[in-house]
Amino acid sequence: MDVIDLINRKRRHEELSREEISFLVEGYTAGQIPDYQMAAFLMAVCLNEMTDEETIALTFTMRDSGKIMDLSEVPGLKVDKHSTGGVGDKTTISLIPIVSAAGVPCAKLSGRGLGFTGGTIDKLECFPGFRTDLSDEEFVSQVKTIGAAISGQTGDLTPADRKIYALRDTTGTVESIPLIASSIMSKKLASGADRIVLDVKTGAGAFMKTKEDAEKLARTMTALGRLADRQVSCFITDMNEPLGNAVGNVYEVIEAVKMLSGEGPEDYRELVLSLAAEMIFLGGKAANIDEGRRMAQKAVSDGSALEQLCRIVSSQGSDEKYVRNPGLLKTAEKTAVFTAPEAGFIEGIQAELIGRAEEALGGGRATKEDIIDLSVGMMLLKKTGDPVQKGEPLMEIHYNNENKLETALELIRKAYAIGLADPGRKKVILMRPEDFV
Amino acid sequence: MDVIDLINRKRRHEELSREEISFLVEGYTAGQIPDYQMAAFLMAVCLNEMTDEETIALTFTMRDSGKIMDLSEVPGLKVDKHSTGGVGDKTTISLIPIVSAAGVPCAKLSGRGLGFTGGTIDKLECFPGFRTDLSDEEFVSQVKTIGAAISGQTGDLTPADRKIYALRDTTGTVESIPLIASSIMSKKLASGADRIVLDVKTGAGAFMKTKEDAEKLARTMTALGRLADRQVSCFITDMNEPLGNAVGNVYEVIEAVKMLSGEGPEDYRELVLSLAAEMIFLGGKAANIDEGRRMAQKAVSDGSALEQLCRIVSSQGSDEKYVRNPGLLKTAEKTAVFTAPEAGFIEGIQAELIGRAEEALGGGRATKEDIIDLSVGMMLLKKTGDPVQKGEPLMEIHYNNENKLETALELIRKAYAIGLADPGRKKVILMRPEDFV
Repeated sequence: MDVIDLINRKRRHEELSREEISFLVEGYTAGQIPDYQMAAFLMAVCLNEMTDEETIALTFTMRDSGKIMDLSEVPGLKVDKHSTGGVGDKTTISLIPIVSAAGVPCAKLSGRGLGFTGGTIDKLECFPGFRTDLSDEEFVSQVKTIGAAISGQTGDLTPADRKIYALRDTTGTVESIPLIASSIMSKKLASGADRIVLDVKTGAGAFMKTKEDAEKLARTMTALGRLADRQVSCFITDMNEPLGNAVGNVYEVIEAVKMLSGEGPEDYRELVLSLAAEMIFLGGKAANIDEGRRMAQKAVSDGSALEQLCRIVSSQGSDEKYVRNPGLLKTAEKTAVFTAPEAGFIEGIQAELIGRAEEALGGGRATKEDIIDLSVGMMLLKKTGDPVQKGEPLMEIHYNNENKLETALELIRKAYAIGLADPGRKKVILMRPEDFV
Repeated sequence: MDVIDLINRKRRHEELSREEISFLVEGYTAGQIPDYQMAAFLMAVCLNEMTDEETIALTFTMRDSGKIMDLSEVPGLKVDKHSTGGVGDKTTISLIPIVSAAGVPCAKLSGRGLGFTGGTIDKLECFPGFRTDLSDEEFVSQVKTIGAAISGQTGDLTPADRKIYALRDTTGTVESIPLIASSIMSKKLASGADRIVLDVKTGAGAFMKTKEDAEKLARTMTALGRLADRQVSCFITDMNEPLGNAVGNVYEVIEAVKMLSGEGPEDYRELVLSLAAEMIFLGGKAANIDEGRRMAQKAVSDGSALEQLCRIVSSQGSDEKYVRNPGLLKTAEKTAVFTAPEAGFIEGIQAELIGRAEEALGGGRATKEDIIDLSVGMMLLKKTGDPVQKGEPLMEIHYNNENKLETALELIRKAYAIGLADPGRKKVILMRPEDFV
């Protein structure tokens, strides 16, 4: 097969065969096809899209490019969850303890943050000593022993996806539904779970700017899962404003721990309980979604989910005292308050700008090599639909460096829109699995 | 400026500014922007096209990336000519002697063949000892002394175009009107001529498969020339069947020499005389095109054009005896005859397949590093519209290697279409400069 011929055909809107897609992906992963040819191919895919057959071939070739996680030693149905990424999204930290407390084993592989979106692995490292680099044996053994583990994706899984993703990141070829779907699904399929729940974010602070694109991505991933004999359930959730009140690694951890104590903001609580209900149902521990939700609520109210988080944290090398008393976690030295420049209703809080403000404070990374400050962050005191008086506090900003605060404040000022009409509360869940027909 | 941001914007159909295009091209030429980013950008250009402003910025940045040839020492208007490439296109070898014999100085920089299209520089090297690597001083001095020189493009001219073209060649990003137009025009503008005549080929054996695309390319190049204060005249000519009867380096040289003696095929003669008339008119030596044509015809009939080719050949290190007696040129050892498999009219001779057959015989290069056999080639005995009997010779094939002949014959068989209805002769010139309004 001739690489240039394949690129030319993709450019001319012709469909490539499974063998041709595999040839490109395997050749690129093995270093036989150079970056510049793959970059041209990826841009052609961004602009001419991919057929279903091509997307399947890409996904399966990436899945099979490395090791497939073997969870067969763990009894029962394993359920995985993935979020397409947003601002203030600390869902995993509450969700995994709840679902595993309800009896569904959770073997969760998570990522780090990049750009304006945070990552679960960074957040968990707020617990002093917490290990996110479990070996496969440690990972599987912990799921068997205590029912849950949350670790970073190991290098052996889907190396083709990792190499292609890094290239997309530097060549303006990130925004493509078939490329995003195949990247996520290749990793999820290689992670070994039997059932997969996907939280597809949509809005100004998400990759998918419109609900239509989010739905298209969700349907693509569901179809890919079905072809690999994996049941996939999708939620489409709002990412116009940040999720919950906390943005920034340690503050998000504190908010997630509080949620397990029955506290915390309504939108975050609603999302966690909805995802948990679906996962408990898919894991075969509840007869229907309603029962799953009641089990999730019970795991919170009876304290079993909090205990489960204590187990995960101590099993992975930190100390449960940080869960029992999150006040012990290291936070920033200084606090500033951002107040309302005028009276009215909050019409919107642009998630992307808040995410960038977090990055500016030092809590996010522009490149993969950046070291981040886990102790900085923001607490939103008002959300969309809240009435505010002029001068009323809108946000607490926790920072360590005055210059960084200034840069963050510029972004924060732009993030808020205040108007005279009440826009109403933002609905966090836009589509549930049962809405996909 | 951020390269990824620029690529993303081009992907999203946004227009880039002149400064942004220059930043990309200069950064790439200087090695600061890697191949893979440029490849993604070029694919986005192929699929989303370029606005006029962007094409101008690309052309001028490439023109200015190296030296601009200074022809000011040569008195009078200098006229250059460029063909977009085809099979059997030996036009330059007859044209430059005719035009310079008529008093218009010709400083012609030419290229080598690649793939199924031949190149003038290769053809001229059939004259033993012919130097195609004249220094700038030698080149200009020869134009001043004898009125014409034909040499290879030196490395100092448009290095940005050379680097980008090499990348396009390996990334499936050749087929793009703004990229082709800017590549050609940047070189022509840097070559220092005052007037430019363009021969845009169209058909199965050309880059531009349709007359509409050829016209679009011609209009783009004319506009680019106007913006650089250069008058550009375009012809659109047929490249469905090969031009003339000879295909293959030495046979094309022989045909070009014969044309200067008043012999040779009608389509080739018509194209050369039409281009010559335009160049003589643009060079200010004729009051109108008709007078230009009469001057061109006279340069052939009075032998002055042939004398001019003798001067060029001996001045560039070979011997005029090869012009006076082309039988001295080295040809292939063996000859095969390809005959008509059935009776009828020749409906078409696919130029691209004939070009590939020439490549298969050893006379063309697949990669720039290949060494080619100048002595192999084909003579077409019949052209489109000719009636043939079954078994009647259609082509003489001059070859040195039986295996290569076999490969070539497979392509040649596919190239001919014979049918029962007379399709009429192919018109070689589809549009003349006066047809562009």
